[in-house]
Amino acid sequence: MNKKIAIVGAGVGGLHLGLYLRQHDVDVTIYTDREPEEYAGLRLLNTVTHHAITVAREKELGVNHWCDETYGYPGQTYYFGGEKPLHFRGDLGSPSRAVDYRIYLPQLMNDFLERGGKIQYKDIQAADLAGLAKSVDLVVVCVGKGTLRDVFARNEKLSPHSAPQRIICAGIYTGIADEEHRNVTLSNSPGNGEIIDLPTVTFQGAGHALLTLNIPGGDTEEWAHLNYDENPRRFLDAMLKKLEKYHPTISARIDPAKFDLANGSRDLLQGGVIPVVREGYIGLGDDKFAIALGDAHATVDPLMGQGANMASYSAFVLGEEIVKQSVIDERFCQIVDDKRRDRVECATHWTNLFLKPPRQETMQAVAQMSENRDMCDEFTKAFNRPEEQWNRFATGARTQRWINSWMN
Amino acid sequence: MNKKIAIVGAGVGGLHLGLYLRQHDVDVTIYTDREPEEYAGLRLLNTVTHHAITVAREKELGVNHWCDETYGYPGQTYYFGGEKPLHFRGDLGSPSRAVDYRIYLPQLMNDFLERGGKIQYKDIQAADLAGLAKSVDLVVVCVGKGTLRDVFARNEKLSPHSAPQRIICAGIYTGIADEEHRNVTLSNSPGNGEIIDLPTVTFQGAGHALLTLNIPGGDTEEWAHLNYDENPRRFLDAMLKKLEKYHPTISARIDPAKFDLANGSRDLLQGGVIPVVREGYIGLGDDKFAIALGDAHATVDPLMGQGANMASYSAFVLGEEIVKQSVIDERFCQIVDDKRRDRVECATHWTNLFLKPPRQETMQAVAQMSENRDMCDEFTKAFNRPEEQWNRFATGARTQRWINSWMN
Repeated sequence: MNKKIAIVGAGVGGLHLGLYLRQHDVDVTIYTDREPEEYAGLRLLNTVTHHAITVAREKELGVNHWCDETYGYPGQTYYFGGEKPLHFRGDLGSPSRAVDYRIYLPQLMNDFLERGGKIQYKDIQAADLAGLAKSVDLVVVCVGKGTLRDVFARNEKLSPHSAPQRIICAGIYTGIADEEHRNVTLSNSPGNGEIIDLPTVTFQGAGHALLTLNIPGGDTEEWAHLNYDENPRRFLDAMLKKLEKYHPTISARIDPAKFDLANGSRDLLQGGVIPVVREGYIGLGDDKFAIALGDAHATVDPLMGQGANMASYSAFVLGEEIVKQSVIDERFCQIVDDKRRDRVECATHWTNLFLKPPRQETMQAVAQMSENRDMCDEFTKAFNRPEEQWNRFATGARTQRWINSWMN
Repeated sequence: MNKKIAIVGAGVGGLHLGLYLRQHDVDVTIYTDREPEEYAGLRLLNTVTHHAITVAREKELGVNHWCDETYGYPGQTYYFGGEKPLHFRGDLGSPSRAVDYRIYLPQLMNDFLERGGKIQYKDIQAADLAGLAKSVDLVVVCVGKGTLRDVFARNEKLSPHSAPQRIICAGIYTGIADEEHRNVTLSNSPGNGEIIDLPTVTFQGAGHALLTLNIPGGDTEEWAHLNYDENPRRFLDAMLKKLEKYHPTISARIDPAKFDLANGSRDLLQGGVIPVVREGYIGLGDDKFAIALGDAHATVDPLMGQGANMASYSAFVLGEEIVKQSVIDERFCQIVDDKRRDRVECATHWTNLFLKPPRQETMQAVAQMSENRDMCDEFTKAFNRPEEQWNRFATGARTQRWINSWMN
């Protein structure tokens, strides 16, 4: 069977799938409305980390252009504010790595083109999918925005939220020194939210993204509403002041004189994400189907850094089945859904849980990790495997059992 | 963790799970209302085959008391009536084997007891489950009858039928000669239904069960309603007459003078099964759960010989997770459900499909198998792996593709 696959969307899920299929000589076309050359001029798209499990897939695809030793970060440093602040770290085992997607995505598009992948520059809408399906064996939708967002029904059972749980203000900044271990920092201010200080490959080389995740109504939500262009100084001063107050370990590494967005407001993104899981596929008539991948399937808050990792994982699950199975139909879609289910649902559950005020057992685990490096390493490595993490946090009783297992 | 498991029901699912758990030194109690000694006096319970994949589990458990070479059957002989009858056979690869469950179940109960398993002779009702749960880590329900039947909600999507699709008349008979290859015979009479002539270990040694599956309103339904005890001769004559008319390859092996139920009406079972899939688990309060296994989870028509094989498979999936996982809670139940889902659902879909009038493609596949032994072997071996079979029959297009793959 000479299969023909259409991928709508050129995000990490679509590109990893496209590259995987080209490695297996499948005829694949990506539909996107953006040419590689446009990316450099865009506003910041997001701030995304790839954990080692995803970097390993990039190596398998031959697209790991960013050397682990130079650009990867080896661990995670945690800061939990409160009456008795906790400050500790854990190893990731193998480095994670973040690249500004305005660099990453066009690079992988060019890799895809070089390997015989086809890209059509078209704005595909929901109404176009059935027509697209006629000439291919499968349509894969990797866009969770616009009319395509509503193609796949919301799975209510797995989607407890109808509004963003964090108001995001993310940027690429200058004037931030590396954490002493070159780690990412996850800084938590109870009642206000979290900041991820993410070592990132930027247009200026190795740099820093600050992803601030602000609880609606909290004292740092204003960051997401301040207009940088109207008054850059006011924006930066507001950042600096409350970073010092709520996120001291990040603030301590900032040189106020050099602290600024690296490229003005083009390096700033303000908004929010509604976490949602959608049905995995839909019939397009005539026994053709569209499968949802990445954000089109499950959108998570960026808190746990799971979005790209889920998308890449699902891309490989889908790619493997496309190569292996001889028929692409509803049974095929069910097989794919079954195989990716546990990881996608666990990443979702885990992220959603940590968006809520912490359970007593979670705080107890955090306190114990702050004193037990091996335990913290176990937790930190499991950012690669959300289903393992969920085995520790699905219930307070599970967390208690995990705590107890480290108490002897 | 020293786990403690309660199993309600001593069918094949409960016993295979109990024996598996004893092999791994888990504290396990089976609750049943029947002592091993009672089975010999019971009316025929069912007629059940264990395909090689299940026999392999019995070997792993050390309870395969019925030597393959003596009691197993090597293949399946098919007869499809109609204007141009088809008569052909396929190999199972490794032998399947059927034992009268009035022999099989008490033997495995005694094996279980010998290995430190506990059996409590109690009639457990739905209302007793929560109480039972208090002293154990998990309750496994393997009974699909009485009040326990309704503990697990019917999964409507997977349960298209609300009435039996075949009216069953099953018995252990004398006077039937072995098929020339010692095969099971699956004989199909369009509009009337199917007969499975099953080589079976009986109280009299190697013998034959006739499982007749009669379409409601068809010409053989009367078998299921005739009262043997009232008039044995009338019952047997009605069988003989219509066997000759509709199932000639079975009829040809019957010596009318010797044809009778082996032990009178104790060897006869008349009734019907409503195919149903139920939810896999339910909370019993206090973070305790009951998992459905075997018939309590999914009841299939006996047409494809999948009931015991599904139950044994699910018992091993559950047993492995009980041994492997450190916590038994809802997440545990979901993991088990995920792992057994594909096989259970595919066995259900495949059996339900073959209860319906055949698709054109299915008949074409049958015709081609009648002329292509290798293709028929492939089909026959897949009675061990219903998910593979379903990959061939999920849609007419899939069957057509399978046919085409054998046409070169």
